[in-house]
Amino acid sequence: MFITFEGGEGSGKSTAIKRLGEKLRSLGKKVVITREPGGTPISEEIRSVILDKANTGMDPWTEALLYAASRRQHVKEKIEPALQEGAIVISDRYVDSSLAYQGGARGLGVDKVLALNQFALDGVMPDLTIYFDLAPETGLGRIRKNEHREVNRLDLERLSFHEKVRASFLALKDMFPDRIKIIDANLDPDQVFQEIWNLVSVLL
Amino acid sequence: MFITFEGGEGSGKSTAIKRLGEKLRSLGKKVVITREPGGTPISEEIRSVILDKANTGMDPWTEALLYAASRRQHVKEKIEPALQEGAIVISDRYVDSSLAYQGGARGLGVDKVLALNQFALDGVMPDLTIYFDLAPETGLGRIRKNEHREVNRLDLERLSFHEKVRASFLALKDMFPDRIKIIDANLDPDQVFQEIWNLVSVLL
Repeated sequence: MFITFEGGEGSGKSTAIKRLGEKLRSLGKKVVITREPGGTPISEEIRSVILDKANTGMDPWTEALLYAASRRQHVKEKIEPALQEGAIVISDRYVDSSLAYQGGARGLGVDKVLALNQFALDGVMPDLTIYFDLAPETGLGRIRKNEHREVNRLDLERLSFHEKVRASFLALKDMFPDRIKIIDANLDPDQVFQEIWNLVSVLL
Repeated sequence: MFITFEGGEGSGKSTAIKRLGEKLRSLGKKVVITREPGGTPISEEIRSVILDKANTGMDPWTEALLYAASRRQHVKEKIEPALQEGAIVISDRYVDSSLAYQGGARGLGVDKVLALNQFALDGVMPDLTIYFDLAPETGLGRIRKNEHREVNRLDLERLSFHEKVRASFLALKDMFPDRIKIIDANLDPDQVFQEIWNLVSVLL
C-alpha cells in the first residue's frame, strides 16, 4: 500500500504523517516513511540543487526534469523495494506536487508534466493521496513563526503563486477523484487525524 | 549556426574545438564555445551530481533525466540566446551523447531517450554534429597518461560499455545521415582539422 500526502508548507501534514506511521506500526504493520524531493542520498543531492536559493534563474522545465530525476531514484531505490517487501509506504509529496507546481502554477501544463513523469514513475502510483487544503497565507504565517526551519527558494515565491498551486491541487482532485482526497487543514489535529484514519482504514 | 562535437574521452575533440573557434574568430565571426554536461552554473551543479564517484547506485533513467535537466538549462540560458545574437555556437557534447550513452549503451532505447529530450531541447537541434571515431582502448590509454585530468564515474565504466557507446554513435549516423558526420580520430590533428573545416565551410 502506497499513500502520499500533499499540501502547502505549514499545513500540518508532517505531524499527521508521523502520527499515521505510529498508528500503523502499533497495529503491527511495517511502515516506511519518506519524502520528496529526497528520500535517497542521490535524491537529496538533487533536492539541494532544486532548493538552492542561488538558483533563481532556473528554467521551469529544468525544475520539472530535476524533480522527475529525483523521483525516479526514489521510486527505484526506496519505494518499489519497500512495497515489494510488503511495507506500507507513506511519502510526504509525490508526483502530484509536480503536476500542481510545475504543471499548474508554473503553466507547463498538467498533461505534459504527467507525460514527463512517466519516465520517472515506473508505473508506481499511490493508492491514496491526501491533500491538506489550507489558505496559503495561513500556512505561510505558520512557517514564519517556526524559527527552526530555514527559508528555501520555494518559500520565497509570491503569495499568488501559492494560490495557483492550491487551485491546481483542487483541479487534480477532479482528474483523479478516486485517488485524491481533500482534508480541511483548518480543523484541529485530532479531527484531521480522524479523517485520515477513516480513509486509511478503508484501504486496510 | 549550431555545431556539436561528440566522441569518447581522449579522442582529441577538445583540441579541435579550440582550433575551430580560433579559426572562426579570425574570420570575424562571433563564437560561443560551451560543453555538456554543464555550460551554465545550474548545469554545472547538475553535472557534479551526475559525475560524483559516490553515486554508483544511480538508476539509468535518473541519469538520463539529470542530463536532460542540465541540457534544458543550457539551451535556455546559453545556447538559444547566443544563436539569437547571431553567434556560432560550438558545444562539446549535446543530445547525441544521451542517445548513445543512455539510449544505446545503457539500453534505455534511443527513441525513448529522444522522446524524453523533447522536454529539454526546445526544438534546438544542431546544424552539424561531428563524431570523433576512435577505438575506446586508444582513447582510454590517452587519458590515463594525462595526470592533470581527474578520473570520473563514467571513466570507470568497463571497456565493453565504451564499445557499446561507439556502436551507438555509428548507428546514430544512420538515423541522422545529413546532420552527423564521422571523423577518424586516428588521423593526425592537422588532417582532422582539415576535415572539420571542409564540413564547416559548406555551412558558412
